[in-house]
Amino acid sequence: MIRFLDAGESHGKALVAIIEGLPSNFYIDIDKINEELGRRQQGYGRGERMKIEKDKVEIWSGIRGNKTTGNPLTLVIYNKDYENWKDFLHREAEKHEKIGIMRPGHGDMVGFYKYKTGDIRDVIERTSARETAIRSAVGAVCKQILEEVDILIRSKVESIEKYQDGKMNLFDEYTYSIIQNSPLRCYNKSIEEVIKKEIDRCKLEGDTLGGSVYISIKGVPIGVGSYTQWDRKLDAILSMGMMSVQAVKAVSFGDGLNTSLKGSEFNDEAYIKQQVIHRKSNHGGGIEAGVSNGENIDITAYIKPIPSVKKEIASVDLIKKQNVTNRYERSDVCAVVPASVVLENVCAFHILAEVMNKFPSDDFIDFKHMIKEYKEKVKKI
Amino acid sequence: MIRFLDAGESHGKALVAIIEGLPSNFYIDIDKINEELGRRQQGYGRGERMKIEKDKVEIWSGIRGNKTTGNPLTLVIYNKDYENWKDFLHREAEKHEKIGIMRPGHGDMVGFYKYKTGDIRDVIERTSARETAIRSAVGAVCKQILEEVDILIRSKVESIEKYQDGKMNLFDEYTYSIIQNSPLRCYNKSIEEVIKKEIDRCKLEGDTLGGSVYISIKGVPIGVGSYTQWDRKLDAILSMGMMSVQAVKAVSFGDGLNTSLKGSEFNDEAYIKQQVIHRKSNHGGGIEAGVSNGENIDITAYIKPIPSVKKEIASVDLIKKQNVTNRYERSDVCAVVPASVVLENVCAFHILAEVMNKFPSDDFIDFKHMIKEYKEKVKKI
Amino acid sequence: MIRFLDAGESHGKALVAIIEGLPSNFYIDIDKINEELGRRQQGYGRGERMKIEKDKVEIWSGIRGNKTTGNPLTLVIYNKDYENWKDFLHREAEKHEKIGIMRPGHGDMVGFYKYKTGDIRDVIERTSARETAIRSAVGAVCKQILEEVDILIRSKVESIEKYQDGKMNLFDEYTYSIIQNSPLRCYNKSIEEVIKKEIDRCKLEGDTLGGSVYISIKGVPIGVGSYTQWDRKLDAILSMGMMSVQAVKAVSFGDGLNTSLKGSEFNDEAYIKQQVIHRKSNHGGGIEAGVSNGENIDITAYIKPIPSVKKEIASVDLIKKQNVTNRYERSDVCAVVPASVVLENVCAFHILAEVMNKFPSDDFIDFKHMIKEYKEKVKKI
Amino acid sequence: MIRFLDAGESHGKALVAIIEGLPSNFYIDIDKINEELGRRQQGYGRGERMKIEKDKVEIWSGIRGNKTTGNPLTLVIYNKDYENWKDFLHREAEKHEKIGIMRPGHGDMVGFYKYKTGDIRDVIERTSARETAIRSAVGAVCKQILEEVDILIRSKVESIEKYQDGKMNLFDEYTYSIIQNSPLRCYNKSIEEVIKKEIDRCKLEGDTLGGSVYISIKGVPIGVGSYTQWDRKLDAILSMGMMSVQAVKAVSFGDGLNTSLKGSEFNDEAYIKQQVIHRKSNHGGGIEAGVSNGENIDITAYIKPIPSVKKEIASVDLIKKQNVTNRYERSDVCAVVPASVVLENVCAFHILAEVMNKFPSDDFIDFKHMIKEYKEKVKKI
Repeated sequence: MIRFLDAGESHGKALVAIIEGLPSNFYIDIDKINEELGRRQQGYGRGERMKIEKDKVEIWSGIRGNKTTGNPLTLVIYNKDYENWKDFLHREAEKHEKIGIMRPGHGDMVGFYKYKTGDIRDVIERTSARETAIRSAVGAVCKQILEEVDILIRSKVESIEKYQDGKMNLFDEYTYSIIQNSPLRCYNKSIEEVIKKEIDRCKLEGDTLGGSVYISIKGVPIGVGSYTQWDRKLDAILSMGMMSVQAVKAVSFGDGLNTSLKGSEFNDEAYIKQQVIHRKSNHGGGIEAGVSNGENIDITAYIKPIPSVKKEIASVDLIKKQNVTNRYERSDVCAVVPASVVLENVCAFHILAEVMNKFPSDDFIDFKHMIKEYKEKVKKI
Repeated sequence: MIRFLDAGESHGKALVAIIEGLPSNFYIDIDKINEELGRRQQGYGRGERMKIEKDKVEIWSGIRGNKTTGNPLTLVIYNKDYENWKDFLHREAEKHEKIGIMRPGHGDMVGFYKYKTGDIRDVIERTSARETAIRSAVGAVCKQILEEVDILIRSKVESIEKYQDGKMNLFDEYTYSIIQNSPLRCYNKSIEEVIKKEIDRCKLEGDTLGGSVYISIKGVPIGVGSYTQWDRKLDAILSMGMMSVQAVKAVSFGDGLNTSLKGSEFNDEAYIKQQVIHRKSNHGGGIEAGVSNGENIDITAYIKPIPSVKKEIASVDLIKKQNVTNRYERSDVCAVVPASVVLENVCAFHILAEVMNKFPSDDFIDFKHMIKEYKEKVKKI
Repeated sequence: MIRFLDAGESHGKALVAIIEGLPSNFYIDIDKINEELGRRQQGYGRGERMKIEKDKVEIWSGIRGNKTTGNPLTLVIYNKDYENWKDFLHREAEKHEKIGIMRPGHGDMVGFYKYKTGDIRDVIERTSARETAIRSAVGAVCKQILEEVDILIRSKVESIEKYQDGKMNLFDEYTYSIIQNSPLRCYNKSIEEVIKKEIDRCKLEGDTLGGSVYISIKGVPIGVGSYTQWDRKLDAILSMGMMSVQAVKAVSFGDGLNTSLKGSEFNDEAYIKQQVIHRKSNHGGGIEAGVSNGENIDITAYIKPIPSVKKEIASVDLIKKQNVTNRYERSDVCAVVPASVVLENVCAFHILAEVMNKFPSDDFIDFKHMIKEYKEKVKKI
Repeated sequence: MIRFLDAGESHGKALVAIIEGLPSNFYIDIDKINEELGRRQQGYGRGERMKIEKDKVEIWSGIRGNKTTGNPLTLVIYNKDYENWKDFLHREAEKHEKIGIMRPGHGDMVGFYKYKTGDIRDVIERTSARETAIRSAVGAVCKQILEEVDILIRSKVESIEKYQDGKMNLFDEYTYSIIQNSPLRCYNKSIEEVIKKEIDRCKLEGDTLGGSVYISIKGVPIGVGSYTQWDRKLDAILSMGMMSVQAVKAVSFGDGLNTSLKGSEFNDEAYIKQQVIHRKSNHGGGIEAGVSNGENIDITAYIKPIPSVKKEIASVDLIKKQNVTNRYERSDVCAVVPASVVLENVCAFHILAEVMNKFPSDDFIDFKHMIKEYKEKVKKI
């Protein structure tokens, strides 16, 4: 059973997470976590702040010479921008101008009425997608562990605005290297060009763009998750994780959105070849009855356009209680690329958690051995 | 904090649920629960079993003369079909023929390898959508409570196969009465006719159909859910609930799938009119930053076609370890209509749970009073 | 991860529990559950009701020919007394006389003010120790599973009133057979006689007696529980379980109450003999730093005298709002003997849950194999 | 719903906690948290390290100018001793001498076998009672919030070794001021002197002492906790919290250990005087049926002597696999005084959590108002 809590404001001193329940004796590669944080900060369409923050994680507990001890991990990512905000955030909120103008689409209004601190600044600081940096760090630790047991999580941008780059096999190394090198995490160069132009145009117009991300997970053994109770279904759990990421508004497994398929077409036909069960397709996205079936787990997450727009839209000043136009706070034009990275890592946490629910795991060596043994056993019919 | 567990097999003695944490002093209308169970059993495209089962719930604990006492509720729905299965299910599984042929798309294979009882029958009995009867009963109790605090949950079929009936305002009573009386929970009679024919055709061909369901929730006050931690976001929680329902493969909030909208279009502009904050649109589906914003919560869930098809498809006998064709077990042609009812009730549980996390609720009278008072307070800016 | 919820009133139709997460392929011996229920109903000092109820459990789901399938179990114990209470409990509470006189020491007052149903009857029905019947049934299933992996849970009465029968090795079969055959679960016949007389005397005087129960658990492998986070400590978890049993007011591990011991005396010295680590004592009660250390887990739970006394004591009528004398409701004179049985079974649930957290297993055969292998491995230094 | 995770090693960079779910708009007094940390570090019988560490907490998130925002709090306590351990802890454990000699009574053996890092140092670092510094900080925040709603938590040393200072009314300000000023948190000066001498003697002999702590909680309104399900009982929850504190081996509520009382004596007689319900006694310790009854919640926790003794005792080197004598690591002689402070704060967390389950509140102003209103209402019968 692993779990974590994270904390921290967008311009506060640091983002912090505590992870409890990781197996001991796993060597954490901190550079690889930072690599994920770096990937998250890249992408065509990112705004100015990304130049300020070069996220680096520090691990304050739970390891000894980079090897996990079983003790809880503390992850810390300092906010470099904090120095500019320090005085502001440490003074009584009463002592400077409060933000009353809500930005529709953000949590400004709901937070203002829920927590009633009288200043939307307090809401912005936590609802900000900056929080995904620390959540990605948590996931990046899990991703490393998964890799060592041959479970790989990869992603690409499936579409931005109406432009479709589509799904493809992300475990074809050639294909994936193109995607990894693309500033838009796309495969098709022509689509990439069109999207770049669209992003440039939007930037000029003060507008933003959404899109979708395709995540594919390879190597999850048969039998992770359970159908015995609603809250143990792997797709339900993954769905919660992904929908909890800022700006995600829809989640689909396999060909879940393609309702034109009939049952006889949607079902992934099975057959034995050389003692191994194969499937002719993967419309189900690797999950049947809420349990992994050994095929790749394929997910698409839909990202709404960032609500921070320079374009004038109608809004309300909740303090002055009057109609106004929108307030703009520095932001990206398009967050689909970073979302792609964040979602890989968020999935990593949930996949590891559920794999660990199936296999004993105080110690990583045992854990790895047990999974390997199990995979061998279920491989051949 | 409310929670429940449910249990029971498809052809076992009964489906049972225990609900813990409901407020006292609420009068449960058992007929209304049975009405929901009845609605779940109707719909064009339902199979033969629905003629056998006329689900009626019994409440064995937690009430006194129909009034809740604060004590946990036991809900019991007897399976009428049990009498025909009794001997079969009570004998040692060893004493009759085991099922080895997996039905792709169902949990047959994953359950066979996960729980290793040696008989797919044991898997079928729990993965069956029959479980949604008791989950609907749990939700139906919650739905009643929500109605008394003016939170209404309604649904319609949005599409079946490629035929779109679309979204519409379900709180327009005239509109909703047409939907409620439609055997396909559709509004447009012409679409209805086309779909009926498609279902008839599929039935003849031994195939099945999927589709989508639109759920709309009215009256959730501002501030339910929270953005402070990933697992408190209302959309994440609802998403988990819905994805856990058999055959649901995708979930979308508001216009979550419409990535062609720009930020300036997606944002739901706000303005004050007669001291009340209004929105010009509801693309966000009533949730901002994981918290309800007072607008209707609009969700679409996508239902895959039922995997049970008469049509021959390739499959595997996991016991005999050989290639075979599919095995057919009695089923419906199209489960989108019942899914519509189930999802209303599943949402009801989660909405009530989260509303109760915001408002004290040992006792229903206090609970109702508190919500009413709060709604008055936040109504006027 | 196993969990359960239970429900049911003292005179309601039935007590019901749902257990989720048990491994498949375990053969449940229902007679053995009933045996535990029978043991719970015996004991010198039990009242009249025990003659009415001869508890028998029914398992409605989760098994097939007594073998678990991995699906959740439904346990049902019908209340025979229900027939006499049926009309009373099904009518509107409004239609008969309400109970307003609180019985100090029972939950009457707190329930009256918390759930505000206006009738203490509603409180009595759930706070009653009758609930321990179903909790014992849940535990009895766990106890069987533990026995199959050589984890044994036994108990005795340690004291009643000021009379001490003491602790002793419960895994000495001769000793334990005497205790099992004693109507007071005592070893010393002379003490037994004294206590019997005290109970008889109390019965005449309309008073009740408390005492203490010693529970000893053998065979829990090293390493169950964890010190990495406060809520994973095995003693903390067991403590919660035991304190949640009606009338338990104190819990102690090993020689936890003997503060006269110095550190050098309390520490359980360790040494190797024939490659096995032994301890010279077990003052720590088998748990170090919240983790099992392979020694017997020794616990004493203290049971207050049943609050239901015929003797006049000052009380309040919460409806009439006036001073009165106590109200008496049928009860036992001394519940220490049944508490002994209940606590064994309550411990069984928590021990199994925590053992399964270390050795998560979908299937009992694997589970058994894994524990056996582990025990072999850690046995020899 | 509030929750927290903590992390950090005894000589690591810092101890860290994240608290989620606190109400907004509460002004945190950081000096008061540090005061609790200071109280924890005092007491006759504390060892050398206390001179090195003067714990100060930093709050990195969740506040703005000391006012809570609803966002999760990050608490950080730096370990001053870290500078001396830095190289040691950051190097590969492989690169210096490992600890193989277990200290009986500590978690050394169980951690060595559970997490298998090959060095007991990794276990010591987390099982150390140093962790109680951060848990006290978490509790200190909760304690402040409780004070503002007139819920006070106080403690004293009840006994050390066989010397009893006893229980008394801690809400008598004169009495409590004496206890607060006593280096042993005792009231009787003569007992204090005897204990001091005993501690001095033990120090010379290289031995340690245990004892007991009395905690009393005033102002918890009627109805916190619930009897409807075993895991909602307030005494069970508090019991878990206290037993999870290092060295606590037994927990008792009210006169829970006094089994010589009969039912008619143990029951706390009730009567009305000036429209208020009073009790003639508080044997039940303020909890009936797992729910607060408005009286003081009285608890005694028993603390075993610190296992770290200089005196020679038999032990085992788990690496060299041979019999040895004990290994000594710097420690206190008697930890009962700090335990007293720690337990106050640990109780504060659980009491606040359960009070917030009854009066959920996003915002402290509402929370305070709600509790005040409720207390007024239930005060008069």
